Amino acid sequence: MTNPHDEHENFSTAIPDGDDRERLVCRECGFINYQNPKIIAGSVVTFGDKILLCRRSIEPRKGKWTIPAGFLEVHETPAEGAMREAYEEATASIEILDLLAVYTVKRISQVHMMYRAKLLSDDIKPGIESLEVGLFTWEEIPWDDLAFPSVHWALGHFREVEGKAGFAPFTNPAEWADV
Amino acid sequence: MTNPHDEHENFSTAIPDGDDRERLVCRECGFINYQNPKIIAGSVVTFGDKILLCRRSIEPRKGKWTIPAGFLEVHETPAEGAMREAYEEATASIEILDLLAVYTVKRISQVHMMYRAKLLSDDIKPGIESLEVGLFTWEEIPWDDLAFPSVHWALGHFREVEGKAGFAPFTNPAEWADV
Repeated sequence: MTNPHDEHENFSTAIPDGDDRERLVCRECGFINYQNPKIIAGSVVTFGDKILLCRRSIEPRKGKWTIPAGFLEVHETPAEGAMREAYEEATASIEILDLLAVYTVKRISQVHMMYRAKLLSDDIKPGIESLEVGLFTWEEIPWDDLAFPSVHWALGHFREVEGKAGFAPFTNPAEWADV
Repeated sequence: MTNPHDEHENFSTAIPDGDDRERLVCRECGFINYQNPKIIAGSVVTFGDKILLCRRSIEPRKGKWTIPAGFLEVHETPAEGAMREAYEEATASIEILDLLAVYTVKRISQVHMMYRAKLLSDDIKPGIESLEVGLFTWEEIPWDDLAFPSVHWALGHFREVEGKAGFAPFTNPAEWADV
């Protein structure tokens, strides 16, 4: 999840004209390499009383289970990104229902936008970033093998509002506010 | 609002190993310049029955009125970014109440996270990016001189849920879904 820009050897830090903080500026051409937070778009996808999970085939957290989620691409809405990720990771066709949560992982400057979604058909199979995919009842979820804290949070928050509509989206659990 | 990366003369497009779409790759060093959507964090700030607006001193839309909003910085939550912007643009100390809306301007790959907020003191004055700042009743809002469509949307959506709590955040008005 390291931003590759950080590793570009030609950049040094300077405060550009009209700015008020240090940016990465190319020593050769003056190009300003703005660092911006990145958006992760994902969803808790249900099929009846089961939840779609994908076992990661790539680092980080290879072999661990996640809800479908990934970096939002340019020219996408967050909901479209969540749909694309579900398809890429599990060939899952989903319908987005509502925004479940907005989490921030400040340390790595990620904003996670997690939706609730319905799986439209159980014709799922692993995409290139998944070793396997499956539908799990709440009790079957491999809690000790989830890939990321935000997967835990999203599943827990999903459970809190199951059957409800018209709620304010969750943010980080209080004890994880400053991760 | 152009991404300066687009203009860096050393970059050409290529599909990196393990990726599935074209990225900007530096011809000299192979550095991959990922393009990511950017987050705008802002808020509809109220003081009694009045709304805080700022008249822009900078392009784009110099001289037009906006709610306080701007690019989220790294290591910030969207709510913290909205607070910082209110302070930078109007020296406004605000308390974030809830997430009003998530808009996407796909053409320029911006995701706007707009909050409702309370102004804690009317001790406001223009920051460097504002020509003037003011508190407006609904009827006094300079509707014909608002800076951006998302300012119109946020004010309209704010009005729709005035006095309500626990609602799902709005997204783009239907007729502006694909802007």
